[in-house]
Amino acid sequence: MSTITILGAGFMGTAVAWPLADNGHAVRLVGTHLDADIIRSCQASGYHPRLRRQLPAGVQPFYVEQLDHALAGADLIVSGVNSLGMHWIGRTLGPRLWPGATVIAVTKGLEATPAGDLRILPDVLRDELPPSLRDRVALAAIGGPCIAGELAGRRHSCVIFASRDAVALPRLRATFQTPYYHITTSTDIIGVEVCAALKNAYTVAVGIAGGLLEAAGGVDEAGAGMHNLAAALFGASAREMARLVALMGGGENVAWLPGVGDQYVTCVGGRTIRLGRLLGLGRTYTQAVAEMAGETLEGAYVIQQLARVLPVWEAQGRIGRDELPLLRMLCRVITTDAAVVIPFEALFGN
Amino acid sequence: MSTITILGAGFMGTAVAWPLADNGHAVRLVGTHLDADIIRSCQASGYHPRLRRQLPAGVQPFYVEQLDHALAGADLIVSGVNSLGMHWIGRTLGPRLWPGATVIAVTKGLEATPAGDLRILPDVLRDELPPSLRDRVALAAIGGPCIAGELAGRRHSCVIFASRDAVALPRLRATFQTPYYHITTSTDIIGVEVCAALKNAYTVAVGIAGGLLEAAGGVDEAGAGMHNLAAALFGASAREMARLVALMGGGENVAWLPGVGDQYVTCVGGRTIRLGRLLGLGRTYTQAVAEMAGETLEGAYVIQQLARVLPVWEAQGRIGRDELPLLRMLCRVITTDAAVVIPFEALFGN
Repeated sequence: MSTITILGAGFMGTAVAWPLADNGHAVRLVGTHLDADIIRSCQASGYHPRLRRQLPAGVQPFYVEQLDHALAGADLIVSGVNSLGMHWIGRTLGPRLWPGATVIAVTKGLEATPAGDLRILPDVLRDELPPSLRDRVALAAIGGPCIAGELAGRRHSCVIFASRDAVALPRLRATFQTPYYHITTSTDIIGVEVCAALKNAYTVAVGIAGGLLEAAGGVDEAGAGMHNLAAALFGASAREMARLVALMGGGENVAWLPGVGDQYVTCVGGRTIRLGRLLGLGRTYTQAVAEMAGETLEGAYVIQQLARVLPVWEAQGRIGRDELPLLRMLCRVITTDAAVVIPFEALFGN
Repeated sequence: MSTITILGAGFMGTAVAWPLADNGHAVRLVGTHLDADIIRSCQASGYHPRLRRQLPAGVQPFYVEQLDHALAGADLIVSGVNSLGMHWIGRTLGPRLWPGATVIAVTKGLEATPAGDLRILPDVLRDELPPSLRDRVALAAIGGPCIAGELAGRRHSCVIFASRDAVALPRLRATFQTPYYHITTSTDIIGVEVCAALKNAYTVAVGIAGGLLEAAGGVDEAGAGMHNLAAALFGASAREMARLVALMGGGENVAWLPGVGDQYVTCVGGRTIRLGRLLGLGRTYTQAVAEMAGETLEGAYVIQQLARVLPVWEAQGRIGRDELPLLRMLCRVITTDAAVVIPFEALFGN
């Protein structure tokens, strides 16, 4: 049995404590500075207020100020923050990591560099580590469809662990796998991570159909909604995702858990689909953000990153002017407050 | 403007009358012998009782006994029957077609031959034609996500027209395309048709998650459903679909409208997802069919066809014993009344 330190006590960081604890590992759950209230509740009563569950036995909560203590003797570290916390994670862990350490991230996102490169988050984290450590730490990431509340409810959840370090993967799988947490592995970390980020971006597009339906007065007298449009946008998303994964040098993970599987579960509901709905209803992005005050909109963040990268790729001749019409529409809407106009001809013309 | 004869007055056969009529074409809607009540209503009042709408102006309803009259001078024929009617369509049209005729089918399905070959429906139709006509008739098919009631409600619907006859495609597109019916085209008729059929088969699998949730008592006290499982089965479906399309010699249409796009809309609801739900609840297939008496279960039909083909492919060395574990589970459930057991390790192990 191992000692595992999770840094970040939000939904997904905490949810992976269930399979780990069920496997008998000692789990140290460390809240970030944003999670102090959560840790207070967990320490007082073992109750996680966001997941609305008692933590399983074997999970010990810590404040971020206790991080050094929580990392002492850890066999494995889980990065449980959202995409905006990736630099912080790297800088925080950097001075505290040791050669041979393994870090697995639940975070889904992408980041544009000032030069217009698009980076997967494990590489963002790596770049924050001291140079002497960068090639001596195994970095992995979790993709695939997984609503945290269902994992914490011990519902069947099927995910993919990805790492360039093929040796680390079987060990990670053995540590996390339970009768309800099913893990496949892949060395295609680029494909998995690009899918993981893009499904948030493209779910905004699928959500637009729901808003357009409401704007049109809802289901008509014969019961017709706009599922056809949502499905077409879902299909177009998969196609553009495949193109973007190929541009990034990733492998075949779109028609699988990380691409369409993860997008399917994201389309079930939540803040990403809600953002799309507001845009479809005619709100500008600025207005939608105001209505959703306080929510982290990772889909919008990914679109903002891609909006910086597309002109660079176009200038480099890596993509044509007419490619990725759905993503370009999303970029206009999110970065310039443009109105939603589905580019039907560009998407579905010939 | 053209004269278009639709043979089959069910949901989808009739729904394509909307874009055709809106484009000013003369549409002749011919019911099969199963559609007599529908045609009676359409002739009496223009009301289609299944779509629950008035037919658009320019659509003339006919009984099957009036077929010769309805075909006279037609520029294009739409096969609007379901997959079980494909031989009938071929045999019925065979003696009445002329060299240079074009037939486009809305039907989605696959058929196993006694020898264990799997055939797409346009080829099943072709084989029923007189030999002298087989290579002188252009056959096309429609794939992609399209609930008929939404198309008839003039909701945005984005589909793919497929044919081996590249010359026929632009003409077909021009005939059907409207501001709400968006058409992309493809010569990959195998890929499109295999996806169109498989999405019905694999939607049964996704539906199982809903039944398992009900069997487990529904959403738990913290709100956890089984969306993760449904999404994992959706992702696994896409992966197996891609393998099956490759085995059939089809192209890249899974991560697009015909594969995941069409499966997405099918998962929204309807008889296929309901069949899966009943199986997940613990009914045998025989029991589920009895509960759904009278409904055409095209997903089950496709699974039955594949159940005949898989052993042949395995004997031929085209697939391994461990391939396509989700489809094999569906085959056991549908053809032997076996209980649902999700093959997690085979699907998501390594």
